[in-house]
Amino acid sequence: MFVLNMRHKDMITPNTTSLIYNIIRQNGEINRMGITELSGVSKSTISLQINKLIKLGLIEEKIPTDASQRKLKLRICEHIGAVAGVFLGITKLTMAIYTLDMSVIAEKEYPFDSINDPVETNGIIIEQLKLLCREHQIKTLWGIGIGFPFPVNFREGKPDSPPNVPLWHGYPLKDIYEKEFGCPVLVDNDVNVMALGEGFRGCTVNESDFLFIKAGTGIGSGLIVDGDIYRGANGCAGDIGHIAVDGSSAQCHCGNTGCLEAVAGGKALAEKAKQLAESGKSPYLKAIMDTGVELTAAHISEGAIHADFACIQLIKHAGKAIGEVAAKLVNFFNPSSLVIGGGLTGFGNIFIGAIREAVISRSPHLATYDLNVRMSELEGKAGPIGAGTLILEYIFSSGQFSTTIDRNIEESTGA
Amino acid sequence: MFVLNMRHKDMITPNTTSLIYNIIRQNGEINRMGITELSGVSKSTISLQINKLIKLGLIEEKIPTDASQRKLKLRICEHIGAVAGVFLGITKLTMAIYTLDMSVIAEKEYPFDSINDPVETNGIIIEQLKLLCREHQIKTLWGIGIGFPFPVNFREGKPDSPPNVPLWHGYPLKDIYEKEFGCPVLVDNDVNVMALGEGFRGCTVNESDFLFIKAGTGIGSGLIVDGDIYRGANGCAGDIGHIAVDGSSAQCHCGNTGCLEAVAGGKALAEKAKQLAESGKSPYLKAIMDTGVELTAAHISEGAIHADFACIQLIKHAGKAIGEVAAKLVNFFNPSSLVIGGGLTGFGNIFIGAIREAVISRSPHLATYDLNVRMSELEGKAGPIGAGTLILEYIFSSGQFSTTIDRNIEESTGA
Repeated sequence: MFVLNMRHKDMITPNTTSLIYNIIRQNGEINRMGITELSGVSKSTISLQINKLIKLGLIEEKIPTDASQRKLKLRICEHIGAVAGVFLGITKLTMAIYTLDMSVIAEKEYPFDSINDPVETNGIIIEQLKLLCREHQIKTLWGIGIGFPFPVNFREGKPDSPPNVPLWHGYPLKDIYEKEFGCPVLVDNDVNVMALGEGFRGCTVNESDFLFIKAGTGIGSGLIVDGDIYRGANGCAGDIGHIAVDGSSAQCHCGNTGCLEAVAGGKALAEKAKQLAESGKSPYLKAIMDTGVELTAAHISEGAIHADFACIQLIKHAGKAIGEVAAKLVNFFNPSSLVIGGGLTGFGNIFIGAIREAVISRSPHLATYDLNVRMSELEGKAGPIGAGTLILEYIFSSGQFSTTIDRNIEESTGA
Repeated sequence: MFVLNMRHKDMITPNTTSLIYNIIRQNGEINRMGITELSGVSKSTISLQINKLIKLGLIEEKIPTDASQRKLKLRICEHIGAVAGVFLGITKLTMAIYTLDMSVIAEKEYPFDSINDPVETNGIIIEQLKLLCREHQIKTLWGIGIGFPFPVNFREGKPDSPPNVPLWHGYPLKDIYEKEFGCPVLVDNDVNVMALGEGFRGCTVNESDFLFIKAGTGIGSGLIVDGDIYRGANGCAGDIGHIAVDGSSAQCHCGNTGCLEAVAGGKALAEKAKQLAESGKSPYLKAIMDTGVELTAAHISEGAIHADFACIQLIKHAGKAIGEVAAKLVNFFNPSSLVIGGGLTGFGNIFIGAIREAVISRSPHLATYDLNVRMSELEGKAGPIGAGTLILEYIFSSGQFSTTIDRNIEESTGA
């Protein structure tokens, strides 16, 4: 006995209105011919739907500015509706408000000393987001996407056993934000959100299957399959920080040894930097430590720029470890691109080069001959952009479109 | 600028007729209420489509046999149409002819001494399949699915750099079979086909995301994502035979060292069996070798049954190596099940247990707490069943349905 929804979700009746709207929303300005080509829907249906969308105030016709533009183009109305993309890091909150086609209305950063207490932290996030809305005359948000720096049960919208901030476990994030803002809210882990941002606005816009690795304090990955985040059976797909690195016995906080995060994560590298300073193997790091400053991954990066041999070796070693694990994932998953994001990309080309070298030397030709190994193009923006994209794709999905319109638009009565 | 087909393929206009037909085809007997629930299509549309399908002779109403069955059930007409599932191994051809709901019409095996020459081998396969059709009065096949034991460029239907049978490279399999049989033909590698068979007819029927590992002469895997084979950017997803095993320096035929296949593949194990026999560490294997028989993986299995310690250790060691690589894939891909198929499953529970143990000890709790690590339920049948399923799902897909009907059914003129 087969479960149809599983095998044939592509066959479920689509919402033609949402289909046409999303084509216009995602393609910028487009004419009716283009919509016909992309949708496969008849011209008469498209005309009907376009009139409906214009009447709703969701799209508008762009008047041609000169004679060469003979065909009227359609575009979404910029000033109707807004969503927020919120991204929390360990030390910093980044948020932005976007139009429905992801133009930036407002952006803001807010530093955190500690995010240990969910009540306090989320109180501040909510306050800051409301303030940002007020400052920019945004009365209502159509939706909010949020990325948090720990595992999240996506369906329930709650953190799931966050390793360093135990008070957050099970904290009902989605419910709290939905109540506060009266709009749909989606909550996901940071790396999924960043991968989505990269896929919709970064260096992998035209790629449907790629792998995004976030190398920062911790190490995680996001898999994009067929243009969407792949979450796996328990929502923990991409959790690569605890994959074993060949030949390493580094002790990890998880209890196992040799975990990628314990070898090449930012925290582990800062610890190694300290050892290199103490042993005098790195004169550059020693000089910094002697001033009383606590060493971080950023100092290793500076050391490399100052041609400190030990720093360069440390970066190469971290890149090699990540690359060797990534090689296994590339063999298995065969992505079109491997995108590296997160704080350690500050190490620059030495780091990316070491990753690329390890991936290519440990993979069969077919899996790598046109594989792109590259740095995220969005840098610090991947988070809020991905969070905004997450909620936009949701509220305009086939199943949610009507609800979104009913909630936010008062249809003109002169039907 | 976004490519719509990539991001929103679930929104493309569906073929309602194919949707309704597939619900009946995949669910066995089902009443109209059930179809309404699964399809989300209105009752009136369903009635219209059902009448159309009955008229075409594709489905029929089952007359209730007693009063308790008040609702008429629909089922597909068994005696209309047939497809073939063909599966070539290194030493054996297995094929079957199925009805459109995958009941077996005929099955056949054919032994091969060598499959080195594609012209000769495919000549025999074609001859045998035609013979089987004739024996069972099958005049035309609606489609043929074929699994071959090497990498296949799925889109082109040609082998792609097959490692041990170089003459097959680029041999136009799909074209040759389509010309011979005048029906659509899909050609894929063995493990993708087996994974699909397991998902549609085996132990993972209700699972949409699982991992199938074939452990035989070589080692490969098939990823099922959202109920379908995931092929990756270059069609080589799942190629895990050359992932490095921690701490191994075994020389692989690919040029690298420590590849999983070189450590735990059937060929490597037979070589190790020889060493254990020669050194006298395995009395059981030595006794067999002394009779002049060439040792294979099957002898290791027999040795284990006879409590030969070296054989048991060898099986455990192979299972551990596969499990350690699988642990990395489980961390990354978070499947609901890990299914082990292929010849080495003859090693039985010692083997599966060693894999399970390695996977669980090297994965975070969340990725494994409800992970099923189990043996394929279909054994030797996974291949032809998967090949049959591959072509059935294709010919009745939304985009192919009308073509399939036009090609095979003469519509009654009394419209």
